[in-house]
Amino acid sequence: MSARKIIIDTDPGQDDAVAILLALASPDEIEVLGVTAVAGNVPLHLTERNARMVCELAGRPDMRVFAGCDRPLGRELVTAEHVHGKSGLDGPTLPEPTMPLQDDHAVDFIIDTLRNEPPGTVTLCPLGPLTNIAVAFEKAPDIAERVAEVVLMGGAYFEVGNITPAAEFNIYVDPQAAKIVFKSGARLTVMPLDVTHKALVTKPRNDAFRALGTPVGMAVAQMTDFFERFDREKYGSAGAPLHDPCVTAYLIRPDLFSGRHINVEIETQSDLTMGMTVADWWRVSGRAPNAMFMGDIDADGFFALLTERLARL
Amino acid sequence: MSARKIIIDTDPGQDDAVAILLALASPDEIEVLGVTAVAGNVPLHLTERNARMVCELAGRPDMRVFAGCDRPLGRELVTAEHVHGKSGLDGPTLPEPTMPLQDDHAVDFIIDTLRNEPPGTVTLCPLGPLTNIAVAFEKAPDIAERVAEVVLMGGAYFEVGNITPAAEFNIYVDPQAAKIVFKSGARLTVMPLDVTHKALVTKPRNDAFRALGTPVGMAVAQMTDFFERFDREKYGSAGAPLHDPCVTAYLIRPDLFSGRHINVEIETQSDLTMGMTVADWWRVSGRAPNAMFMGDIDADGFFALLTERLARL
Amino acid sequence: MSARKIIIDTDPGQDDAVAILLALASPDEIEVLGVTAVAGNVPLHLTERNARMVCELAGRPDMRVFAGCDRPLGRELVTAEHVHGKSGLDGPTLPEPTMPLQDDHAVDFIIDTLRNEPPGTVTLCPLGPLTNIAVAFEKAPDIAERVAEVVLMGGAYFEVGNITPAAEFNIYVDPQAAKIVFKSGARLTVMPLDVTHKALVTKPRNDAFRALGTPVGMAVAQMTDFFERFDREKYGSAGAPLHDPCVTAYLIRPDLFSGRHINVEIETQSDLTMGMTVADWWRVSGRAPNAMFMGDIDADGFFALLTERLARL
Amino acid sequence: MSARKIIIDTDPGQDDAVAILLALASPDEIEVLGVTAVAGNVPLHLTERNARMVCELAGRPDMRVFAGCDRPLGRELVTAEHVHGKSGLDGPTLPEPTMPLQDDHAVDFIIDTLRNEPPGTVTLCPLGPLTNIAVAFEKAPDIAERVAEVVLMGGAYFEVGNITPAAEFNIYVDPQAAKIVFKSGARLTVMPLDVTHKALVTKPRNDAFRALGTPVGMAVAQMTDFFERFDREKYGSAGAPLHDPCVTAYLIRPDLFSGRHINVEIETQSDLTMGMTVADWWRVSGRAPNAMFMGDIDADGFFALLTERLARL
Repeated sequence: MSARKIIIDTDPGQDDAVAILLALASPDEIEVLGVTAVAGNVPLHLTERNARMVCELAGRPDMRVFAGCDRPLGRELVTAEHVHGKSGLDGPTLPEPTMPLQDDHAVDFIIDTLRNEPPGTVTLCPLGPLTNIAVAFEKAPDIAERVAEVVLMGGAYFEVGNITPAAEFNIYVDPQAAKIVFKSGARLTVMPLDVTHKALVTKPRNDAFRALGTPVGMAVAQMTDFFERFDREKYGSAGAPLHDPCVTAYLIRPDLFSGRHINVEIETQSDLTMGMTVADWWRVSGRAPNAMFMGDIDADGFFALLTERLARL
Repeated sequence: MSARKIIIDTDPGQDDAVAILLALASPDEIEVLGVTAVAGNVPLHLTERNARMVCELAGRPDMRVFAGCDRPLGRELVTAEHVHGKSGLDGPTLPEPTMPLQDDHAVDFIIDTLRNEPPGTVTLCPLGPLTNIAVAFEKAPDIAERVAEVVLMGGAYFEVGNITPAAEFNIYVDPQAAKIVFKSGARLTVMPLDVTHKALVTKPRNDAFRALGTPVGMAVAQMTDFFERFDREKYGSAGAPLHDPCVTAYLIRPDLFSGRHINVEIETQSDLTMGMTVADWWRVSGRAPNAMFMGDIDADGFFALLTERLARL
Repeated sequence: MSARKIIIDTDPGQDDAVAILLALASPDEIEVLGVTAVAGNVPLHLTERNARMVCELAGRPDMRVFAGCDRPLGRELVTAEHVHGKSGLDGPTLPEPTMPLQDDHAVDFIIDTLRNEPPGTVTLCPLGPLTNIAVAFEKAPDIAERVAEVVLMGGAYFEVGNITPAAEFNIYVDPQAAKIVFKSGARLTVMPLDVTHKALVTKPRNDAFRALGTPVGMAVAQMTDFFERFDREKYGSAGAPLHDPCVTAYLIRPDLFSGRHINVEIETQSDLTMGMTVADWWRVSGRAPNAMFMGDIDADGFFALLTERLARL
Repeated sequence: MSARKIIIDTDPGQDDAVAILLALASPDEIEVLGVTAVAGNVPLHLTERNARMVCELAGRPDMRVFAGCDRPLGRELVTAEHVHGKSGLDGPTLPEPTMPLQDDHAVDFIIDTLRNEPPGTVTLCPLGPLTNIAVAFEKAPDIAERVAEVVLMGGAYFEVGNITPAAEFNIYVDPQAAKIVFKSGARLTVMPLDVTHKALVTKPRNDAFRALGTPVGMAVAQMTDFFERFDREKYGSAGAPLHDPCVTAYLIRPDLFSGRHINVEIETQSDLTMGMTVADWWRVSGRAPNAMFMGDIDADGFFALLTERLARL
């Protein structure tokens, strides 16, 4: 099988960075057509910079990086510097990127790519708020059915929420965009907190990154070190959840994940539950399934894959 | 320590029945001042009948049973015959009750009792929708601060929902009433699905009820047999969750339960998440705690207590 | 035709006072069975006091006055001292009432009266938030169909709102109660701002009250003087709208009012439009009519009636 | 003063057509840079066709017409064939347009125009749902402050609603887009139903169009004839309200209109009031003004202007 063509839509973020590195380290399985940045963990001018920084770290200054929307649909931007640090990529000391930002708007790159590539061949991998994807779908409704799959990190069901008691960060930041994507009819695969909270960077796993002895291994170890502090204090967990790499790992090893094909609706009406992904896990609602909602991960297999691939960079 | 005076507010329901039996079997720890019926699992004319039937089964035809509200605040009544059967108490064959229903309204019995007993001495034990309690609090706002504790079965956080993907049945049926109770300032202890889904009537536990060889033991075994069918089919679980007896067990053995004192808000605005108990388990909201929200149970200890006490009847 | 038996449910309020005076001045058409006080314009301890004060002013210290609910269903009480003054009845200097408050709760008086009188003979006249009526309907659902008519002051359509841009005060204070009443199936007649903003106490009309030369005439003139200041400043209108007397005037002279029998729903979900009476004036919704929603008044006829009747006291 | 440069964003619609004709008939005051079509009264493939048809009727086959978004943000498209007929432009028989549709997307034409023209020189004139404008503002947030003014037809306050009891059609179709535009910070002038319901095409006014004796005059007379049927039946009014031409008339003769600079919020949470423009006409909310909300029109002056200008085509 040839490599899957993907667009990574992202708001790096340490875990976004690892997800990008994993994709770029896996050319046999994944062909990254471009990276589109969106406002989320930090503002857009930082996420596009961080995306370029990560591409350079991966030895891919040729990668095309596009800036997209700098705010969610009809809401103020909420950011997460309390998790990711001021730069969004706190932890390692990486050089300022020298590769250029592309002139085109991320939304147009997404639209043009989906129109230019054969139908059903391009997968979208959103790792942040879904603003870019939603605006692309609104501007060019024909592209939704040309998407091979949207594999996204976002939402939660049994894990419920992180930014509020009812909502996960990516969906909470732009619930209207999420609603558009979840209603789009495109094939959806969702990596919610239910999965990612089982992908914890424990001390031995972090040590394994560091033991790679490469700049990438060191940077990833430093990123997850930084990232971990927040979750350890909040959840008392054994390590930081490595959210976004679940998306790119799924493209390489879908067998590491299991879930249910169910209905998932996005809450957009109530302030209290705003941005909740109401996943009909027990199939009590009678609503039609619209997403593959993952619930479990082979965490050891995942970290083995990750370490093995990062070693290639 | 003398027995705690309680009012059981209930919509039996097989698990309500077991909760009542447990209370009546434990006079050293619990003095049941009266039983108030509310519409919920089945309509009011059945819940008040079932409540009397259970009192007679426990050998307590002297117990005072009151009928209360027959519908939630501003919403249509939703019932759960799919779980509890047409009578609400399907399973055993119990004789039609002969003990009388009291003339007074349940709401007035609650108000009068709280006003007549010394402040801080009466505990309310709601096992169904919170309509009666809320109407009492609205009609007589002075009683909220006279309540010793409200120990209720309802809501869910990590277990999220059963009647909808976001809401547990008792709260979903009357979210407005729940909102009134959760904002009342009364001391609240909540037994959510997070706890009750760990209190499963497995085959050996059911056998233990049956092995009591008493009418009560047999009836309880038959009730949980009936009740189990629904959950086994839906969740594939090893047995039916025995929701409501957690409330009365807590009065006898609070050490069997553990949880967090946190903020819990009731969703009343969105149809999609209506009746959700948004529990701030991770304390991310900054909202003031208003409830002891239980999260775990010593299930073996719970069933040992239950079996031992039911043997006394 | 014999006099209509009514219960006035009220939160005086200067205009409530005039409505009560008009009823008590019209024994041929109206028999006031009792007055029930509710929290609204000012807290309950003031509204029950003001109700007694007004009965005494009318020479009716024998009237039974009951205190009801002191807060709305599940919301904080919002009051309107900015309109009615600190006492709720600012303007005239009236003696502290000496007639007693009844022991029974307003809710029980409403229920008992509706059960004791023949079906279809008792009209409820709510002049404030609908809390008492809603709690009575919840506690005793059988009474809704025994009500002859609910004639209430509340809501707005083309006049939209006064306390917020979308809501009239009485409904805004307790939208859940309003929802219960509007869904109760009882026959409803609504006097919204659309009507009451056409019943303005202009200078000549106020002079006519004063010219009565009686304590009642003087008090009414002083009340409307006080009341007027708010509306003149806000709306630049020619005088204060005399909201609540429209209710009792309707009982005497229904021909003074015209409206449409339409669907009216109460907004309870959105903070922005909370308490709006969404009246389907143009019948575009397809929802079944549930209220006679008045739209116009013969203001001259109304003030002539009012002045003539107040002269009798 | 030189002519104001404008972009007309439209979903014709008979009244949209008249608005466009008025603008094209007034080159001294208005320079139409382009016409952008959006889904609304009828689907996009008809609105873009109708827009071209109207340009040709005006003798302007050189005008650039762009197609934009074919559905609102996150909602199903609601159309209004019951008002405008199946084609959206029922009434006259106009030839199929031969002028081309531009290749660019309406959203990009809006963005590029605002970026290429000097700041503060381009006025947007939305006559339909605000989808195109909102997507442009989301994709290119820098343009909001480059807009000279957004003069739009939409919303209602005292007239409340037409498509639902609480909402006007244009805003109801895409409330999220409206929210984005009303929060954008751009200078807003709103022509709500409060104004347009005073701009009625009575028989004499229609006769005046017909008496022009030109193809344009005849077409406009036939359009308003068709359009009138709906409103006459629904409101019993003396003629059809000519909604959208108020926008272009305002550009020529702002003195014909009066209103208030107030806060206007868009309801997006409740189904019952969805799309309501909550206009704080009485300034009770304390929220900051964000729009000039018109309330009155000199209707005779308006129709005189309209007839005079249409005569020029």
